[in-house]
Amino acid sequence: MTHNDAFRQIIAQSSFFQKCGSNFLEKCESESQLIKAPKNKIVFITGDHAQRFYVIRSGWIKVFRETEEGEQAVLYVLGEGEIIGECAIFNDNKYPYSAEATEDCELFSLSLAVLRAEIDSNHAMAIHMLNTQAKRNWVQDREIEHRTLQNAPQRIGCFILRHANPSAKGKTSIQLPFDKTLLAARLGMQPETFSRALSKLKTEANLTVKGSIIEIEDVGTLSKYCCSACSSTYPCEDLPQ
Amino acid sequence: MTHNDAFRQIIAQSSFFQKCGSNFLEKCESESQLIKAPKNKIVFITGDHAQRFYVIRSGWIKVFRETEEGEQAVLYVLGEGEIIGECAIFNDNKYPYSAEATEDCELFSLSLAVLRAEIDSNHAMAIHMLNTQAKRNWVQDREIEHRTLQNAPQRIGCFILRHANPSAKGKTSIQLPFDKTLLAARLGMQPETFSRALSKLKTEANLTVKGSIIEIEDVGTLSKYCCSACSSTYPCEDLPQ
Repeated sequence: MTHNDAFRQIIAQSSFFQKCGSNFLEKCESESQLIKAPKNKIVFITGDHAQRFYVIRSGWIKVFRETEEGEQAVLYVLGEGEIIGECAIFNDNKYPYSAEATEDCELFSLSLAVLRAEIDSNHAMAIHMLNTQAKRNWVQDREIEHRTLQNAPQRIGCFILRHANPSAKGKTSIQLPFDKTLLAARLGMQPETFSRALSKLKTEANLTVKGSIIEIEDVGTLSKYCCSACSSTYPCEDLPQ
Repeated sequence: MTHNDAFRQIIAQSSFFQKCGSNFLEKCESESQLIKAPKNKIVFITGDHAQRFYVIRSGWIKVFRETEEGEQAVLYVLGEGEIIGECAIFNDNKYPYSAEATEDCELFSLSLAVLRAEIDSNHAMAIHMLNTQAKRNWVQDREIEHRTLQNAPQRIGCFILRHANPSAKGKTSIQLPFDKTLLAARLGMQPETFSRALSKLKTEANLTVKGSIIEIEDVGTLSKYCCSACSSTYPCEDLPQ
């Protein structure tokens, strides 16, 4: 596949670029760089002067903040078609978080100056970004709600439910998208807390864990267990996977 | 003070309206209603069909989500000059959260349709809202970071620090803006957890609590204790009070 074909393919599946002008997309395409970020590669660090933003072509990128002593808070784990670093244009061109490849990743690197010019001149794009940011706000509101009301097994169960087919009833199974250490960090849990919580969840909601495959005996039982401590009900329309 | 004077006074101190056109502000002023929301009055509920948004003139409004069983997660506590419900225009005109007066409040009620028309036609306003939303995103990112890395005493200490004069050194004091029950809910703690955590904080960071007044023996000691578990340092530029 040529560089441009690969670029167009990923742009087509990314909601971020839906309202962009064709001039902007052509400019992005012509100056885009495909970057390989091997596992553990830092893409950028909080506070770095930002000139580029990134579209993930493959792999999982961890978005996090870190204390001086090296303790990390994982804010998001983002994958194919998702964007990182674009928000630096609202932060004096400094990245407000750090980003690291959790496995071998490929990213398209794009110019923030070109994005800034597009947002400043294309009203439909600005409105589209407002909608996107509002949705991200609700995702975070929901995360704060879960951290307040759900216990650790319920939060793991909620993550599993969001990866199940929303029309699934009764018995079903899912594959975890990334390993349990990263999942624990994404859910804000220490590995040992995660491990204990997963054991409890298996008993409470009748799950079987076979490596990265989670077999759910009954979606209704699992959703009843998790969603009783959430303001939404299953299938949840408020949250992405 | 006339209705219009009171309206203009609150608009002038609200960052939300900075880039609005004068036509829009005149329309808002002429159709605005000053509402009294007595303590415990529900202003709106999650999912309600939204036709109005609100500027807080006085008092504290609790923004929250609630499970079917009545457990609440408090997302924000907002005060004078702050806006609630405007985000319904990005959510199919449904409020994405509930709002309740925590004391006797006064609110200006404004038309969401007029706001929608302004955003659709005024590019500077759309860009200003993008900036505002990006900042709200970081506030929530920081909340998630704190819930991941800080313990309960540190989170209370962080809240206290944000109410201290940023140039304060050594001994200083602050007044809590609202009562401890609401503060516990805002920080996502059960009242008994809050109470234990405040006791521990008093010892660890040498604080004296006299009703709603918190006397801080040394800002440096308090900030060292709280900010060691945060990616920012004191005085923190990332967070509002």
